[in-house]
Amino acid sequence: MIEFGNTKVLCAASVTEGVPRWRVGSGLGWVTAEYAMLPSATNTRGDRESVKGRVGGRTHEISRLIGRSLRACIDLSALGENTIMIDCDVIQADGGTRTAAITGAYVALSDAITWLAAADRLADPKPLSCAIAAVSVGVVNGRVRLDLPYEEDSIAEVDMNVVATDTGTLVEVQGTGEGATFARSTLDQMLDLALAGTEKLCTLQAEALALPYPGDLPEPAPRKKKAKS
Amino acid sequence: MIEFGNTKVLCAASVTEGVPRWRVGSGLGWVTAEYAMLPSATNTRGDRESVKGRVGGRTHEISRLIGRSLRACIDLSALGENTIMIDCDVIQADGGTRTAAITGAYVALSDAITWLAAADRLADPKPLSCAIAAVSVGVVNGRVRLDLPYEEDSIAEVDMNVVATDTGTLVEVQGTGEGATFARSTLDQMLDLALAGTEKLCTLQAEALALPYPGDLPEPAPRKKKAKS
Amino acid sequence: MIEFGNTKVLCAASVTEGVPRWRVGSGLGWVTAEYAMLPSATNTRGDRESVKGRVGGRTHEISRLIGRSLRACIDLSALGENTIMIDCDVIQADGGTRTAAITGAYVALSDAITWLAAADRLADPKPLSCAIAAVSVGVVNGRVRLDLPYEEDSIAEVDMNVVATDTGTLVEVQGTGEGATFARSTLDQMLDLALAGTEKLCTLQAEALALPYPGDLPEPAPRKKKAKS
Amino acid sequence: MIEFGNTKVLCAASVTEGVPRWRVGSGLGWVTAEYAMLPSATNTRGDRESVKGRVGGRTHEISRLIGRSLRACIDLSALGENTIMIDCDVIQADGGTRTAAITGAYVALSDAITWLAAADRLADPKPLSCAIAAVSVGVVNGRVRLDLPYEEDSIAEVDMNVVATDTGTLVEVQGTGEGATFARSTLDQMLDLALAGTEKLCTLQAEALALPYPGDLPEPAPRKKKAKS
Amino acid sequence: MIEFGNTKVLCAASVTEGVPRWRVGSGLGWVTAEYAMLPSATNTRGDRESVKGRVGGRTHEISRLIGRSLRACIDLSALGENTIMIDCDVIQADGGTRTAAITGAYVALSDAITWLAAADRLADPKPLSCAIAAVSVGVVNGRVRLDLPYEEDSIAEVDMNVVATDTGTLVEVQGTGEGATFARSTLDQMLDLALAGTEKLCTLQAEALALPYPGDLPEPAPRKKKAKS
Amino acid sequence: MIEFGNTKVLCAASVTEGVPRWRVGSGLGWVTAEYAMLPSATNTRGDRESVKGRVGGRTHEISRLIGRSLRACIDLSALGENTIMIDCDVIQADGGTRTAAITGAYVALSDAITWLAAADRLADPKPLSCAIAAVSVGVVNGRVRLDLPYEEDSIAEVDMNVVATDTGTLVEVQGTGEGATFARSTLDQMLDLALAGTEKLCTLQAEALALPYPGDLPEPAPRKKKAKS
Repeated sequence: MIEFGNTKVLCAASVTEGVPRWRVGSGLGWVTAEYAMLPSATNTRGDRESVKGRVGGRTHEISRLIGRSLRACIDLSALGENTIMIDCDVIQADGGTRTAAITGAYVALSDAITWLAAADRLADPKPLSCAIAAVSVGVVNGRVRLDLPYEEDSIAEVDMNVVATDTGTLVEVQGTGEGATFARSTLDQMLDLALAGTEKLCTLQAEALALPYPGDLPEPAPRKKKAKS
Repeated sequence: MIEFGNTKVLCAASVTEGVPRWRVGSGLGWVTAEYAMLPSATNTRGDRESVKGRVGGRTHEISRLIGRSLRACIDLSALGENTIMIDCDVIQADGGTRTAAITGAYVALSDAITWLAAADRLADPKPLSCAIAAVSVGVVNGRVRLDLPYEEDSIAEVDMNVVATDTGTLVEVQGTGEGATFARSTLDQMLDLALAGTEKLCTLQAEALALPYPGDLPEPAPRKKKAKS
Repeated sequence: MIEFGNTKVLCAASVTEGVPRWRVGSGLGWVTAEYAMLPSATNTRGDRESVKGRVGGRTHEISRLIGRSLRACIDLSALGENTIMIDCDVIQADGGTRTAAITGAYVALSDAITWLAAADRLADPKPLSCAIAAVSVGVVNGRVRLDLPYEEDSIAEVDMNVVATDTGTLVEVQGTGEGATFARSTLDQMLDLALAGTEKLCTLQAEALALPYPGDLPEPAPRKKKAKS
Repeated sequence: MIEFGNTKVLCAASVTEGVPRWRVGSGLGWVTAEYAMLPSATNTRGDRESVKGRVGGRTHEISRLIGRSLRACIDLSALGENTIMIDCDVIQADGGTRTAAITGAYVALSDAITWLAAADRLADPKPLSCAIAAVSVGVVNGRVRLDLPYEEDSIAEVDMNVVATDTGTLVEVQGTGEGATFARSTLDQMLDLALAGTEKLCTLQAEALALPYPGDLPEPAPRKKKAKS
Repeated sequence: MIEFGNTKVLCAASVTEGVPRWRVGSGLGWVTAEYAMLPSATNTRGDRESVKGRVGGRTHEISRLIGRSLRACIDLSALGENTIMIDCDVIQADGGTRTAAITGAYVALSDAITWLAAADRLADPKPLSCAIAAVSVGVVNGRVRLDLPYEEDSIAEVDMNVVATDTGTLVEVQGTGEGATFARSTLDQMLDLALAGTEKLCTLQAEALALPYPGDLPEPAPRKKKAKS
Repeated sequence: MIEFGNTKVLCAASVTEGVPRWRVGSGLGWVTAEYAMLPSATNTRGDRESVKGRVGGRTHEISRLIGRSLRACIDLSALGENTIMIDCDVIQADGGTRTAAITGAYVALSDAITWLAAADRLADPKPLSCAIAAVSVGVVNGRVRLDLPYEEDSIAEVDMNVVATDTGTLVEVQGTGEGATFARSTLDQMLDLALAGTEKLCTLQAEALALPYPGDLPEPAPRKKKAKS
């Protein structure tokens, strides 16, 4: 469970044997993610996507972003043909749910890797090359701000999500003018602020991962087991 | 949030103006529920129904059961043409999720009613005629047991869910032989045990509702607001 | 074809080789059912579920109930890895379609078993441990009544479906207060009446099954054949 | 219920107020049809389209053919803005289900018109300009044959469906070489045979419609009632 | 790309190894087609079927017609267990899109066959037994007309599509009275005109196929390659 | 029709009265886009999304990107409550389809605006505040490259799409490390190259728009007409 202000996201990792069909026989593992929001997470109840019968474009887009970001920090050959699925379920939403999800998902992924290493199921016991974290930055009333809550986010002129590593390199940069355009100098200011933010988050992640696992770690077992963060 | 042993269900009520189309013009309100399980709630990850593109039969059946049970304890004419939707999302599952959901849903409904009454939006300020709670009972190795955890539930010979009121009358009784049949005397024993259980739960509910609301109660507002339990 | 008053349900059994994926390798067979209502079965035409693109919750719930009830009376290991699918299509509906469907489905299942035994495809030639039948009971204007037609059913205060065997044990009990609650003594009265009803139905089933098969019995064949009731 | 050899189709007409959205305000009525096959209608059980979640191309094509054929014989302005829906459900299939459905659908439509006229809901009491009936013809082993049963149909070299009126004019002609082509002289022979067949069927329809209505005709009522054939 | 007046259809053939599941092991190949219309092809924008989530009845019907017509002129045993898929995408529509699609699809099929023969992947290097082409004919204001543009087509009393070979035999005949019926003599006149039209089209096809291939022909390769017309 | 190397995208604008439901009554117009790829556009045929029954995540994501980009350059209050839908259909794909689609979509939007202004249907005759164009840049073998064709794109270490205006401000920046991370200095180099590219494209757009309209411009008409680029 990760909390960014009033935003709360439950991130859980599941390990399953096998990989998607297009990857079978490659010897490589797979890391993917599914993002979803509980109907009660927002102030005005949203419809359930299961009831509507299809996953919306926004949900798809965020799920793909989380999975892609996580794959940037892991050596997939060390996993063997196993899949790690990270579920990110937003329990309460107040802006920045996608960046909170990525930051929490890294912790869940890291826990899953520790558990797999303990079970001796990894070719390389340290497949994570770096930590990753994500923040949102935006321009509100002409000022650059970090991690906007929903009220500010909805009136931001520019909105940017940055995924970065603990060594300061970039994984993903997505900046959008909301019905407006922005100067390149504004982009530079937003990146400065974002990288300061992800650096701080990576420190917090390291502290969380240094603590003993909260709850019973499932016994390492050879098949279809699962680690929960 | 209700916890029954290791089962944890998040129950939240949302109030919206208007009623389903077939009920428009009746002057009556509507109470309904949606039940869902997070993919990470069980030991072996389940697929998301939103990704599969349809709500399964079991989910449908439980959602209908919760809504029907809640409607047995409320005077729908007092609501006016408003709908109360109760979302029950299972965060962690260890047997008895549907009965935990009903018991928690009543608390969420009761909170929503208190909030509506405070906002002066009810024709009758006390539309709840009774409290309701639910338990599961089962027969395991020939012995009748209350509130089976998942390990026992999956080997039970008979499985019964009972929804009852705080005055001891019945709202719903669903008993099933799992690949077996059962004598009428067994049914009687299960009912005895179940009613003792729901009586105890109703006491716990009353205690929970007597406490001050945990967190900020949303300000009463004339449209599209929402109370969370 | 079973008729309960004006309710007419066509029940047909199909035998296919193989079992659902989760059951492969168990050596056990499977019995399942699909229930559906023709759009013209009710007084006001209902929309086709195939056109709406999904099976509604009610249809799912009844299909599951029929399958579960049938599995209570059969030894699945005698079937080998074969599946018997019972299709219950409501041609005309006047209350009690689910109980009529279960009662007729047992006859179709029994015919299919006779046909499989004749074709020497059963490990045990008598895998049915008992007969099952189902009735609905309800409380209308304070009086307990058996097998309500639609007009009474829609105003019933309590509605209960009981599936029982020819030896008087219970398979499934589902009792619901329709926007109301009911006393335990009412439950007892309803059960008395229901068990008298299922006893009578089991006699009628036995008589129907004693008659020669109406129409040509398909020739026993080793693969993908089908018995129709 | 219409029977062509072993093919049995249940045809029922429903009258509803209103027309599809694109036709509102035209002052014209609408006649349409839905065709479906019960899973147990064929020798090898077919999957339910409601369970598969979509209506197949063949079903769609036949539903459209039936509706189009019926609209050729009725003056839609006489209906006012009302819709007649004809449901054709195949109970047992042995070739020629679509032509049986059209022939039976005309009888159901005619019954519905009689009922609407009795209820004084038609601008013109005789909106049907002719009767229609349909047959299939085919070439099997080089010989032209009428109304092929399934075993012959599946080996036919050419397959043609003809919808015609009782005055011998054509409504629809669909001829297909099955993996082969055919000479124009063959088309002429097939048409000769088909028109002789539809003439005979129109006589049978007239006889059926001359009989008193089998069962209780629903009382004429001003809204949402329905006539069944 | 085929143009019939203002109607423009892009026809492309793709060759893939393997055949649909029901055909595996037969040693026969398969030819099928998918027809679709771009939303911008018509004067009033149509909704995308991918966004609506299902393929409409008309689209299905035309796709089936194209595939069936093409299979009449090819010896499927010569293909081995390979599938040729013809995509017909309507870029601009002005009546007669299905007949233009069939006529163009034959050219694409013929190109694909040439390419497969060059790659030495055919059992018989000349599996096409004839050429096929299609035209629409109709009756407008009592006069029989060939290849109606949209404005005339939408007011035609009778509409007929004819698929024929270059030797004058018929593949498919579909004639429909649009809310009206037609005499057999009218059918004869329409067939005369249609066969004159398909004869002319077959000449044009032969000329087009005699030209060198416009653009780079993909190099013959043993797997999953594709020829474009 | 826009061509970027071997990538060909057909962009067409449709104007319809009215706006999506959530925007009704705002007095503002709406601009949105739908992106799709023909199955024959790629070297290996892709499945149709209409046949699969749902729009994939990638398609959704690109459609949303195009719409968002276009809305950055237009004053929606000048449109009144009208919707401009831009359809971008990829006829042939060789990398950079989304950036080609945005660049072409702007031209189609501009044509639609000219047509609406001529028909006197705009509150402000010049609602476009700037031109927009998009390019992809990437890092291949350590070198920053503009507008990668498919072969290079699929092996790029970093991939970035930039949407910018003709005045050099930014609309959208999306940069992704493909299983890798990238330094901030690399981001700066990619932006330099991208902005040089969009500047050149804006010059080409202006030249294209200065030419007379290719083909018949539909007559300005008060309702449901449509301009095609």
